[in-house]
Amino acid sequence: MNADVLIKKIKALKIQGAKNVALAGLEALNIYASEIKSGNKEKFLKELGSKAGVVASSRPTEPALRNSISFIMRRLYRCRDVTEIRKTLSAEIAEFSENIESTIKKIGEIGARRISNGDVVFTHCHSNTVIGIFRRAKLEGKKFSVVCTETRPMNQGLITAKELAKMRIPVTLIVDSAARTFMKKCDMVIIGADAITSTGDVVNKIGSSTMALIAEDLKKPFYVAAGTHKVDPATAQGFLEVIEERPKKEVAKKINGVEIRNPAFDVVAARRITGIITESGVMPPQNVYKLAGKFN
Amino acid sequence: MNADVLIKKIKALKIQGAKNVALAGLEALNIYASEIKSGNKEKFLKELGSKAGVVASSRPTEPALRNSISFIMRRLYRCRDVTEIRKTLSAEIAEFSENIESTIKKIGEIGARRISNGDVVFTHCHSNTVIGIFRRAKLEGKKFSVVCTETRPMNQGLITAKELAKMRIPVTLIVDSAARTFMKKCDMVIIGADAITSTGDVVNKIGSSTMALIAEDLKKPFYVAAGTHKVDPATAQGFLEVIEERPKKEVAKKINGVEIRNPAFDVVAARRITGIITESGVMPPQNVYKLAGKFN
Amino acid sequence: MNADVLIKKIKALKIQGAKNVALAGLEALNIYASEIKSGNKEKFLKELGSKAGVVASSRPTEPALRNSISFIMRRLYRCRDVTEIRKTLSAEIAEFSENIESTIKKIGEIGARRISNGDVVFTHCHSNTVIGIFRRAKLEGKKFSVVCTETRPMNQGLITAKELAKMRIPVTLIVDSAARTFMKKCDMVIIGADAITSTGDVVNKIGSSTMALIAEDLKKPFYVAAGTHKVDPATAQGFLEVIEERPKKEVAKKINGVEIRNPAFDVVAARRITGIITESGVMPPQNVYKLAGKFN
Amino acid sequence: MNADVLIKKIKALKIQGAKNVALAGLEALNIYASEIKSGNKEKFLKELGSKAGVVASSRPTEPALRNSISFIMRRLYRCRDVTEIRKTLSAEIAEFSENIESTIKKIGEIGARRISNGDVVFTHCHSNTVIGIFRRAKLEGKKFSVVCTETRPMNQGLITAKELAKMRIPVTLIVDSAARTFMKKCDMVIIGADAITSTGDVVNKIGSSTMALIAEDLKKPFYVAAGTHKVDPATAQGFLEVIEERPKKEVAKKINGVEIRNPAFDVVAARRITGIITESGVMPPQNVYKLAGKFN
Amino acid sequence: MNADVLIKKIKALKIQGAKNVALAGLEALNIYASEIKSGNKEKFLKELGSKAGVVASSRPTEPALRNSISFIMRRLYRCRDVTEIRKTLSAEIAEFSENIESTIKKIGEIGARRISNGDVVFTHCHSNTVIGIFRRAKLEGKKFSVVCTETRPMNQGLITAKELAKMRIPVTLIVDSAARTFMKKCDMVIIGADAITSTGDVVNKIGSSTMALIAEDLKKPFYVAAGTHKVDPATAQGFLEVIEERPKKEVAKKINGVEIRNPAFDVVAARRITGIITESGVMPPQNVYKLAGKFN
Amino acid sequence: MNADVLIKKIKALKIQGAKNVALAGLEALNIYASEIKSGNKEKFLKELGSKAGVVASSRPTEPALRNSISFIMRRLYRCRDVTEIRKTLSAEIAEFSENIESTIKKIGEIGARRISNGDVVFTHCHSNTVIGIFRRAKLEGKKFSVVCTETRPMNQGLITAKELAKMRIPVTLIVDSAARTFMKKCDMVIIGADAITSTGDVVNKIGSSTMALIAEDLKKPFYVAAGTHKVDPATAQGFLEVIEERPKKEVAKKINGVEIRNPAFDVVAARRITGIITESGVMPPQNVYKLAGKFN
Repeated sequence: MNADVLIKKIKALKIQGAKNVALAGLEALNIYASEIKSGNKEKFLKELGSKAGVVASSRPTEPALRNSISFIMRRLYRCRDVTEIRKTLSAEIAEFSENIESTIKKIGEIGARRISNGDVVFTHCHSNTVIGIFRRAKLEGKKFSVVCTETRPMNQGLITAKELAKMRIPVTLIVDSAARTFMKKCDMVIIGADAITSTGDVVNKIGSSTMALIAEDLKKPFYVAAGTHKVDPATAQGFLEVIEERPKKEVAKKINGVEIRNPAFDVVAARRITGIITESGVMPPQNVYKLAGKFN
Repeated sequence: MNADVLIKKIKALKIQGAKNVALAGLEALNIYASEIKSGNKEKFLKELGSKAGVVASSRPTEPALRNSISFIMRRLYRCRDVTEIRKTLSAEIAEFSENIESTIKKIGEIGARRISNGDVVFTHCHSNTVIGIFRRAKLEGKKFSVVCTETRPMNQGLITAKELAKMRIPVTLIVDSAARTFMKKCDMVIIGADAITSTGDVVNKIGSSTMALIAEDLKKPFYVAAGTHKVDPATAQGFLEVIEERPKKEVAKKINGVEIRNPAFDVVAARRITGIITESGVMPPQNVYKLAGKFN
Repeated sequence: MNADVLIKKIKALKIQGAKNVALAGLEALNIYASEIKSGNKEKFLKELGSKAGVVASSRPTEPALRNSISFIMRRLYRCRDVTEIRKTLSAEIAEFSENIESTIKKIGEIGARRISNGDVVFTHCHSNTVIGIFRRAKLEGKKFSVVCTETRPMNQGLITAKELAKMRIPVTLIVDSAARTFMKKCDMVIIGADAITSTGDVVNKIGSSTMALIAEDLKKPFYVAAGTHKVDPATAQGFLEVIEERPKKEVAKKINGVEIRNPAFDVVAARRITGIITESGVMPPQNVYKLAGKFN
Repeated sequence: MNADVLIKKIKALKIQGAKNVALAGLEALNIYASEIKSGNKEKFLKELGSKAGVVASSRPTEPALRNSISFIMRRLYRCRDVTEIRKTLSAEIAEFSENIESTIKKIGEIGARRISNGDVVFTHCHSNTVIGIFRRAKLEGKKFSVVCTETRPMNQGLITAKELAKMRIPVTLIVDSAARTFMKKCDMVIIGADAITSTGDVVNKIGSSTMALIAEDLKKPFYVAAGTHKVDPATAQGFLEVIEERPKKEVAKKINGVEIRNPAFDVVAARRITGIITESGVMPPQNVYKLAGKFN
Repeated sequence: MNADVLIKKIKALKIQGAKNVALAGLEALNIYASEIKSGNKEKFLKELGSKAGVVASSRPTEPALRNSISFIMRRLYRCRDVTEIRKTLSAEIAEFSENIESTIKKIGEIGARRISNGDVVFTHCHSNTVIGIFRRAKLEGKKFSVVCTETRPMNQGLITAKELAKMRIPVTLIVDSAARTFMKKCDMVIIGADAITSTGDVVNKIGSSTMALIAEDLKKPFYVAAGTHKVDPATAQGFLEVIEERPKKEVAKKINGVEIRNPAFDVVAARRITGIITESGVMPPQNVYKLAGKFN
Repeated sequence: MNADVLIKKIKALKIQGAKNVALAGLEALNIYASEIKSGNKEKFLKELGSKAGVVASSRPTEPALRNSISFIMRRLYRCRDVTEIRKTLSAEIAEFSENIESTIKKIGEIGARRISNGDVVFTHCHSNTVIGIFRRAKLEGKKFSVVCTETRPMNQGLITAKELAKMRIPVTLIVDSAARTFMKKCDMVIIGADAITSTGDVVNKIGSSTMALIAEDLKKPFYVAAGTHKVDPATAQGFLEVIEERPKKEVAKKINGVEIRNPAFDVVAARRITGIITESGVMPPQNVYKLAGKFN
């Protein structure tokens, strides 16, 4: 596989989900490394560093990708020679892949404990981590059901609905605007995250901040399920999370005289989040930044 | 035109908008009347009354229809003979049609005064009354723009966007879930109404209660534009407005194991409404019921 | 029956409930009238007026009593002679008794329409008007259940629980402090009223304002069921509703060094009330004062 | 006195307070009338009408002035001839002056009943109507104290403080920014009004909306004391109350590179007002518009 | 004393208060240890571990008990032989007893600093830790008073009232439903805690969450006084605190057709807590979990 | 310079701003140290410790001063002899001065990243740290403008306005009461801090808590810019921040019968703060206490 093609795919949103994007990015980095000829440590690292920048910036709203790359690059600088660098790079990528899987598994175990028999859980969009919680709760034999929004414009909610149906978890699909009507009868909300800021705000699929506002209004527990690799350390340094604006055609075909806008994410304020379910436990949003210390 | 066909169209949502539904219903009533043979006043009214019930119940969430019919029927009972009844019925229908047009015109004039140069107005779904306000403000030469949601599942927001574009009013189209992101930069919200209850709550297109919640959170003025014929007197008698549930296929194609739900309306609490713009002026929601006294 | 004894009973809270107190007060007034010897209209009215004052002030927090007396006295002043006065007094008392019964019946009919199959309704203390709603809903064959607080210190909630149990309406009894835990699973709250102010605030049994606060927090509809004779016109004139402080021993036996306080009522702010269910319909709290026009 | 000079004074804010402005405006109108020569009714009214327009628009944020003029002009149009017009004009002006005095007196009586011994009342700016309440409560022998803000930029709070000190009512003067610190220990807030809208919002001295926000946050009763002649009927027709922007030098001397802004009023949302104390009683803000029916 | 008898007493609520329950549980564990015959380390620990499980689960809502046991057991596993285990167990129990006393003393010192002369403090139920704060403030010569609820159904508030009366601290006793009326005149609220979750929520006597809601509404500081041994580390792992349901007869005698419910605790949301007063200082609720690190 | 004179100036508010006060205090301490004759370490430290107490208490609401002194004194106690003490003292003071400058610089860099082109930023009073952010953003070429309050009674807002004008940053000056009107059109609020408590509350110039309340109501991000040396560790130990009451004449000239009050600060609740911009990054208010660990 060509690294440039991979990067193109990431940019074109052909690859989706924090985990998949991070893994693809690391794979691209590994390919780039294999293509560097130089046996000189400094030259090698300079070239690789430049490629790392290309990979890291291929998706501005994916801190998991950026975090893993900067974490691994820091390790590489401590290696003695190119041989060790190549070995370390492969080992770190393998470890990161493993970690991301075990993180999702651990969050599944912890999150499932919040679901009791008879509960109705509300979710928005599609998140592997949230699906992991539902899978685990089902495995434990819990009887619960899920309400999920279609999640316009890309309808990822249908993926969630189909995956739950396959697991034989009762699921109800609604339009995004019907969220308030159905959340009244739900027991809690669980969504995923694209990024977590230093103050505990959560960046996630457009509509998430409205779901949190409704949950606050109705006093429903609002959980975010996300590994600490989602923390974006740049936010502590004052940077604002960039909100990607996607193609207009995702919303509607061109209409003369009508401007179409399509921001892909919005920001859930920390104070509206009951807890973030991380691999280290259910935490107040304000404290997740510190748990991600190794990425800072 | 056959009256039964008209009723069928109303039931099948082929005819939409409070005004159009009411006018079609009255037309059907008129046709039914023309088909009654009896020259005996009592018999005539009994037969017509039964038809009036059929017409009134053809769309449970359209109080404008019910209100006009019960208002006209009360007048007919006071006529001396069938000849007078027939004449009165035609005259009343004509008057109602005229009234509904002048109501929309008057609301347009009043509502347009709330729009100032440079304002950005947010709207949801499609409402002839709201469009009337925008048309009037544009006629007066005001420079303003509109943000409108697509309004899933039937996308009536696209009708709004197209009508505004035709009038050369700058308009931005967004998915329903992006409402909070864009309302932050808006100056006010104006939506229409399907029904107004005795306590000033407003029944309107699904998502309206969420738009009102967001507006309350962001402290944006939230106006409802609606004639007093939208008041439902039955709500004073304790009846709850029935929330119609529309066909699932409007939301998505059938998916095995997934239940699809499609309620068409929700209820905006009176306390979240800054004012209702009626033909009698901008009123607190709590006081609109009394303005509709002639329908009670 | 001696009128002074009746007044004593009213003062000693031996007679309870707005309806019973008002009827007893009117009976006392009637007895007082029968004891006045004078055949001179002016003298008669002066004496009766002074007795009316005694009756009206026997329970400061019962506007129903005061309203009926001042309403009847105004009528008496328009009579030509003592004979007509005596006749009018009896007739008015009879009419008031009838009205209060028909008011409760009408409120029962209207209120019952807000209860749907499967609903859980929360109530606090004991109110004949609220019981009337439950009775009617049960008569109509609705399947619903009630959660009621014990209502310290006098435990009137137990009366509510027993009356509902007798009607075979499923009922759950809890301590007042458990209200929030149970209201989460309720669909609405319905309480009675001791008095309604000109701004729509409701004076009711201690704890009512907390129940309304919890309902607001959880976004549960909060209804007050009360006839318009509960409106206190003096509040429009600036007077504050007097909050009666009852005997300490109702709370606990004397404890050395501990002050015991026992206010009997508190005030529910109008903005926390979804609607007041009156004999004239479900109304916004702000508009009930005007419905009681004849008492002003 | 020359009428044009009077109008100039009104425009230059030399005459202040709703009452004083309205009386001066009516005086000007009377002088204008005396200067019209024509004995022809139509000509006379046409000339007077044009002058009435000049007077009414001399202070855009004083509905009391506009209301009295349009009310009186409507009466004049019903007169038979110029003689009757001149007589009616004088009589109506006299009656209005009397009414405005009795309104303030009546509000004083009603408002004073809301003040109990030991109360601390918070006020902002200076209002004759509010002072009337304090005067009356003091006359009735009530022991209470007042906290008043200095009310930048014109420091009308100092006038309030001095008037209260003269009446020997204990008064504390603070900077506007200290309002929250002191309101915590107050029992209620009472302010005046420049205008009341059809939805019950109150336009008053800059800072009033913040005082209302603080009162809402701390759950303190927030009263507005204002006669119904403050209602602005144009707001029902959609017009927004114009917020006057006063000279920059009131705020600070010119500073190079610094823009100074000085809006004189802001708007208190109806939902933050506990009640408006009018000459007709303590009313929910939403219902005051109807009480002012004769001005509409 | 027999260990099984102790455990029975704990289960039967004969022993109350986090401190007393933990000490009794540790005593039981010590007795069980003394009854184990085996001199083999592995066998000994296995047997003791099984007894530790019995003790730890004797009261599900007492994390102090569970925390101390799991903390001590971890230490025992590091011992070389049975002799050392026995010595360590006694030493650790002694140390824990001492710690719990010094924790309460330290919290008393810190908490007392929040009380100023003239303050009125609101409390709910009975807590040794809270009493410790009042005792200390009194010792320092502060003049303050306390309002305490009776705390149905077991009336522990009377214990609080009596203990305060004995210390000559002025105290007012009210029914639980009167909390809102009296909290208006209080300066702060201080309650104890049964458990603290990883997100800073506090589990405490039924009614506590309502007291916090009232305090939030009235903007009164709401403190929880609790040692860090109250943190329940299982909540970080997703487990929900179990809410014990006590005997119905505590609420009322059996009534035919009436279901009685008696949950003993409810949960105060972290965002409604001003600070938790721990032995390590006044902390934001979100940060107390980390302070309890040694128990995790 | 005489140390006593310096202390007097600090007390008389001749020296203002956390940084300037701290530096002046340290200079005073250094002078006092130079005046101590004794060569005996214990005697020297005893004398210096007593002077340190004088300096630290010269301004009760300046934790930066107290923090630096107690931090330095702890270091001195670890020195071997007087020579080392003198050297260490000078070195530590130099380091503190440097740190405070680099802290302000670092906060400037981080804070400037929150400002985007086209933003309008609201500020209250004058803060070197906030000015540092504006300076940095301007240096980076960002186009933004600032709204600043005059900040009665001492009008420090005019200093802010003038400094911004000098930097050619567009700035609008308003009276404090106009904050709500102008904040509606702002994108964020940034203020400084005098002290930060252990629970993340911020003590700042009177009016700050109202600015935070308005920002919360309008959902505007509310930032505090402050170095961690502003944390007051005494608050963790239960001590309340003392609110200084300044001379009455700052507010107004003496008026007979009028009490003037002039508290200089108020407290912004942590839950109303979006983030505190410290030298270590943008942090949730609850977590700043721990960042200041070295001062505890």
